[in-house]
Amino acid sequence: MPDLQITSPANARLRHVASLRRRRVRDAEGVTLIDGFAELSLALDAGLRPQTLYWCPELLRQPQSQQHLVDRVRERGSEIVHLSRSAFEKVAYREGPDGVLAVVASPQRTLDQLAVTAGLVLVCEGVEKPGNLGAMLRTADAAGVDAMLAADPVTDWGNPNVVRGSKGTVFSVPVASCDTAEMLAWVKTNALTLVATTPDTDLDYADVDYTGPVAIAVGAEQTGLSEEVLAAATHRVRIPMAGAADSLNVSISAAVVLYEAVRQRRRR
Amino acid sequence: MPDLQITSPANARLRHVASLRRRRVRDAEGVTLIDGFAELSLALDAGLRPQTLYWCPELLRQPQSQQHLVDRVRERGSEIVHLSRSAFEKVAYREGPDGVLAVVASPQRTLDQLAVTAGLVLVCEGVEKPGNLGAMLRTADAAGVDAMLAADPVTDWGNPNVVRGSKGTVFSVPVASCDTAEMLAWVKTNALTLVATTPDTDLDYADVDYTGPVAIAVGAEQTGLSEEVLAAATHRVRIPMAGAADSLNVSISAAVVLYEAVRQRRRR
Repeated sequence: MPDLQITSPANARLRHVASLRRRRVRDAEGVTLIDGFAELSLALDAGLRPQTLYWCPELLRQPQSQQHLVDRVRERGSEIVHLSRSAFEKVAYREGPDGVLAVVASPQRTLDQLAVTAGLVLVCEGVEKPGNLGAMLRTADAAGVDAMLAADPVTDWGNPNVVRGSKGTVFSVPVASCDTAEMLAWVKTNALTLVATTPDTDLDYADVDYTGPVAIAVGAEQTGLSEEVLAAATHRVRIPMAGAADSLNVSISAAVVLYEAVRQRRRR
Repeated sequence: MPDLQITSPANARLRHVASLRRRRVRDAEGVTLIDGFAELSLALDAGLRPQTLYWCPELLRQPQSQQHLVDRVRERGSEIVHLSRSAFEKVAYREGPDGVLAVVASPQRTLDQLAVTAGLVLVCEGVEKPGNLGAMLRTADAAGVDAMLAADPVTDWGNPNVVRGSKGTVFSVPVASCDTAEMLAWVKTNALTLVATTPDTDLDYADVDYTGPVAIAVGAEQTGLSEEVLAAATHRVRIPMAGAADSLNVSISAAVVLYEAVRQRRRR
């Protein structure tokens, strides 16, 4: 069966795909979008099977490697749809689209689908900026976490800026959302030491032992972690700061503590 | 003398201020812009004396604390200009401006104006994204570096997104730009150990001694450090990565290595 071709930007199906830029629509359908060659390549490396790939041969910048990407998707049994340039630009999320857009199942899992084996988990509570969530996923992937949990999330995992910021790792790092009480219960059930980052403590993050099973928690950009999480934490730790500013970016804080855990574990 | 007032967005002086969004104009005049209450507060904390403060009482969100900010600037002898809302929106860089915009001298110094006392320096080569440069400044400030050098920079220190991303710390961390050869000569003159981050090495960043005088170098987002820097480095180090993606964000890499240096120095 030949691939479906769509040339009109007014096509009803394309209007529907464009509507997936809205979180409400994505949530209702349990899907998200991957817009771009690099991000889709990473997601495929992570084992993803897209539902549908929309592509536009005219917009491909590296036709040979991108044709290879289309072939990879086709081999996984995904539907492939050719778009004209004007049709593609109707659905593309990013500026300067490169002719590849996939509709995929949401990466989000439920808490009971998460397995703790390495004993290293990143928890973020109330983080707002998709770029920060994406940056933390990329670091969490590199640090080898079992999972990343978003407690009381403001941003959904399928946000296209999360997918882009994470360089596709949102499809390789197991991710879940829940409320704070559920997160704390899950941490307890999995016998994880909860290490909460906060400026309001004297304990240096590097003075804590991360070689056992541990969850590292970081809070929202403006407000930090909730009292609920700080009260439940085994250790409240701070990152020493010498300068004029009074805080680090949340994705930087997460990286500093995660990599201290990695460092200690390599020496275990 | 009462403050100057401007109500027309077509005012010639405002057109000039708006032109400062262009790097070429800022470079020619040796100035940069600080757009926003939080950033300007930090810059003032760092000792900055603005040339001119443009402000719009109508747009102030926290009138009392922002009036206090205006008073602080006035006490430093800066010129103060009142703008109408439409006039302010003509010159504001950010979305949702909060009624405070300062024109200030460029934070950039020359290499011979930099003093090495703590013996900790961050060098970045060819970094392109203002957001990354800003994030690294914020981390460098917190880590207590003597200076941050940009070798062969693509972005200038006065870029408004650097000022914002750095939370004003571009005015507290001594910063300089130069070419790579000048940077290497400066590192040598200051007897700094040069630690270069790269994926192409087996040496773990945490296996290096950072307790002596050291410069930590990170490279451009896509291409990493140049051969010139890698060849000149005392140590080429990698950050171990366990996951699907093959790199960390440059500002994350810088933070992980800088904070390993801070950790070792606290235990010296």
